Amino acid sequence: MVCAIQIYEKPRLNNPVLIEGLPGIGFVANIAALHLIHELSAKLFAEIRSSSFQDLAVTTETGGTRSPTNELYYYKSRDGCRDLIIWHGNTQALTTFGQYELCGRVLEIAEDLGCRFIMTLGGFKKEEITETPKIYCAASDLETLKEALNLGAKIMVGQIFGVAGIMVGLSKLRGIKSFSLLVETFGAYPDANATRHALTTLNKFLKVNIDLSKLDSAAEQTRKTLESFGVIKNVIQEKKKEEQKFRWFI
Amino acid sequence: MVCAIQIYEKPRLNNPVLIEGLPGIGFVANIAALHLIHELSAKLFAEIRSSSFQDLAVTTETGGTRSPTNELYYYKSRDGCRDLIIWHGNTQALTTFGQYELCGRVLEIAEDLGCRFIMTLGGFKKEEITETPKIYCAASDLETLKEALNLGAKIMVGQIFGVAGIMVGLSKLRGIKSFSLLVETFGAYPDANATRHALTTLNKFLKVNIDLSKLDSAAEQTRKTLESFGVIKNVIQEKKKEEQKFRWFI
Amino acid sequence: MVCAIQIYEKPRLNNPVLIEGLPGIGFVANIAALHLIHELSAKLFAEIRSSSFQDLAVTTETGGTRSPTNELYYYKSRDGCRDLIIWHGNTQALTTFGQYELCGRVLEIAEDLGCRFIMTLGGFKKEEITETPKIYCAASDLETLKEALNLGAKIMVGQIFGVAGIMVGLSKLRGIKSFSLLVETFGAYPDANATRHALTTLNKFLKVNIDLSKLDSAAEQTRKTLESFGVIKNVIQEKKKEEQKFRWFI
Amino acid sequence: MVCAIQIYEKPRLNNPVLIEGLPGIGFVANIAALHLIHELSAKLFAEIRSSSFQDLAVTTETGGTRSPTNELYYYKSRDGCRDLIIWHGNTQALTTFGQYELCGRVLEIAEDLGCRFIMTLGGFKKEEITETPKIYCAASDLETLKEALNLGAKIMVGQIFGVAGIMVGLSKLRGIKSFSLLVETFGAYPDANATRHALTTLNKFLKVNIDLSKLDSAAEQTRKTLESFGVIKNVIQEKKKEEQKFRWFI
Repeated sequence: MVCAIQIYEKPRLNNPVLIEGLPGIGFVANIAALHLIHELSAKLFAEIRSSSFQDLAVTTETGGTRSPTNELYYYKSRDGCRDLIIWHGNTQALTTFGQYELCGRVLEIAEDLGCRFIMTLGGFKKEEITETPKIYCAASDLETLKEALNLGAKIMVGQIFGVAGIMVGLSKLRGIKSFSLLVETFGAYPDANATRHALTTLNKFLKVNIDLSKLDSAAEQTRKTLESFGVIKNVIQEKKKEEQKFRWFI
Repeated sequence: MVCAIQIYEKPRLNNPVLIEGLPGIGFVANIAALHLIHELSAKLFAEIRSSSFQDLAVTTETGGTRSPTNELYYYKSRDGCRDLIIWHGNTQALTTFGQYELCGRVLEIAEDLGCRFIMTLGGFKKEEITETPKIYCAASDLETLKEALNLGAKIMVGQIFGVAGIMVGLSKLRGIKSFSLLVETFGAYPDANATRHALTTLNKFLKVNIDLSKLDSAAEQTRKTLESFGVIKNVIQEKKKEEQKFRWFI
Repeated sequence: MVCAIQIYEKPRLNNPVLIEGLPGIGFVANIAALHLIHELSAKLFAEIRSSSFQDLAVTTETGGTRSPTNELYYYKSRDGCRDLIIWHGNTQALTTFGQYELCGRVLEIAEDLGCRFIMTLGGFKKEEITETPKIYCAASDLETLKEALNLGAKIMVGQIFGVAGIMVGLSKLRGIKSFSLLVETFGAYPDANATRHALTTLNKFLKVNIDLSKLDSAAEQTRKTLESFGVIKNVIQEKKKEEQKFRWFI
Repeated sequence: MVCAIQIYEKPRLNNPVLIEGLPGIGFVANIAALHLIHELSAKLFAEIRSSSFQDLAVTTETGGTRSPTNELYYYKSRDGCRDLIIWHGNTQALTTFGQYELCGRVLEIAEDLGCRFIMTLGGFKKEEITETPKIYCAASDLETLKEALNLGAKIMVGQIFGVAGIMVGLSKLRGIKSFSLLVETFGAYPDANATRHALTTLNKFLKVNIDLSKLDSAAEQTRKTLESFGVIKNVIQEKKKEEQKFRWFI
């Protein structure tokens, strides 16, 4: 299987933007995606399980169960904003191999729905941050980058890890444009404040008019979900292990 | 291959329940499944080898050999109980990837035989347990949960690891209901007492009337098999390594 | 690819026995297979590369190169002995997954050529061995076992690791008989003496009349090949790491 | 996916030589390939992403992004030199499995374009090197070897790791000839001097007339790219981990 995918509906979308919102540094993308789903009443159309997710289920307080999953939602524009595909989940894949396979499959689905533009949000880990955290960006091409710079973002210098980084590379291979927005954050806990700044910029960029008053509740729900899977407590320890290995030498 | 599957017979079953019975905490599921197979004279219809099982064979006292394997048995109801598919084996897969692949294949076979309901048994590891161990449950939906609560089980709070946890998640994706029954146990050795309480509850739930007088012999056979593969002595040491890794950061 | 296989010829064989001869404890199987190939002038008909072999090549003294490989040879009987498929190589696969995939592919090829019987040779590691090392056996069925016991072998008690162990399990799934012959050895170096006893027993069992006078030269060639790949010096160190992991708990 | 491949053009080539130029010891192959691409104005015709590459993207100084990638270029001969396929990239695969899969795919593409000859360049790590570093060679056959020896190369004795080693083995399986040229180098940094000597020999061998005056700039560009992916700083540490594991014992 590698990825088991259930597609519940194949929506007709008009040039949709794919917004990646999996857990990562500061959980900025994860909170933002959840908030967008709530505010836009986005509709679930696909679910993904991967052989590279955790092999467990967690129980909810009411005796139900929750599994490591990724979900795709769509939003059909009603107010001049572009159609959206929102990629939310409670986990990324646990191995490099699994990450690429997951991204490859989501990209296939998105491209099949006409998507030619991908946005990834994220946190940019800093030891110190100001009250109004700085926003950084990277883009697949100069034109897109210019739009981002016009919104007040600075050019990001460094490495973008995980799904956000892979999506940039895989989408470029298919000629799909992409754009990363990264907000300063301490990184280890779900950061509602950083997410607020990310969404404010996204609001301007996509011309979607998202109300941010209930953002704290999305952050709190994100924290609870990730704690139940043991993700949050592990985040800091595991970060040190985050070193790539190079095992090839002629 | 990943999974090499030999299907010896394709039974016609009527809305069967799949009972997962692989080795796990307290070996509750493993003993219970073996006992059910004996008592119901359930019939072997499929065998599975996985590339993620151990790469060895063990010899029996008589010069025969035994390999890491999973087996599927069926039981056609004669007395008002539901038809059963019993999933027994002497191992789970050794990697997360292998676990998902294994579950995916068994689920395919079961669904193909008309299965829409899965039961997983298990042990719930505790430092102290009472003589009559407590029973916990988790379910895919509130209706099923209610039935379980009526049998005297409490709502389980926590994580369900391994095949039992994965099956809950993969089955939900296909709209298959599932139900986990977990009994308090110390966890490290095959626990006949805990299994007795699990089977008593299962008896009530499935309205199958299993005699439990020979349960100790199933526990003893389970212990011997798992020792020959080196599973039991390793259980305690390996438990500490049982921590999921999170290696993705935006 | 997982396994890249080049089949140079598809021989017509009459009920052939597959003899597994990859490197293992005491390199008994490896030396024996090489010696059989030389003495019987067995013919190479297939070569296998696996994604789970080492990622290197070694140079020979003359500027040529040698790669991690498995080879299949056949021998068409001329003197009442059975036809043989001899599986020789300078490596097993480096991962459990790779081992199963390799065995699965070789089994497919062998079965396709009419093979219904598999022999695995091997060393049985002991701290002390007598000048005439003891021979142990394990078999898929009692009838085959009886034949082996009649040759003077004792019943083996324990675990058979690696390709030899997997082949027993995968072949049983297809109803193919198998038979393991294991000779006492210290295990860490290519053991010509142990191999001599293994081949003497094999001679009786298969009624093949192999001359053993040049066996030392096969042992020496085996040692040189394995040293060039760094296999032999690593054998002892790695043995301690040879512990299976159990990471599933309900 | 394992490998996601985008083929932009399928060039008509006449008996082309594939030149492998991925990062390795001394980055000799990597610098050489980049220099050849520049000097010959070789044309990009295929790009490869692998599930075994790093899961990240790096940003460029201008806000663009760069991903772990392999690229294939072609050069149609204008001056009696042979047609070339140049395999350049900023990474090899991170796992043995990934290395083999990558090589298998590139070999398929190259063979499909008529390639029957492969050249791998590389560094040969030494503690001390002379100002004019020695050149070593290994070849698939004696005839090719003889040509190399005539160019002043010595016979290499040892192991060729990574993609260069695998290509030798996989190509031999398809009857494709290959030839490795290895230059003495300290190994840990991009070595322009060693590369100069490699290219001088390659110039003679392929009768291609490459100007070497801008080689330092290719070395500098290679260093910058690899540093941005964190490859260079990791090289020395990781080298110690470069030991193959042998986990099979009968």
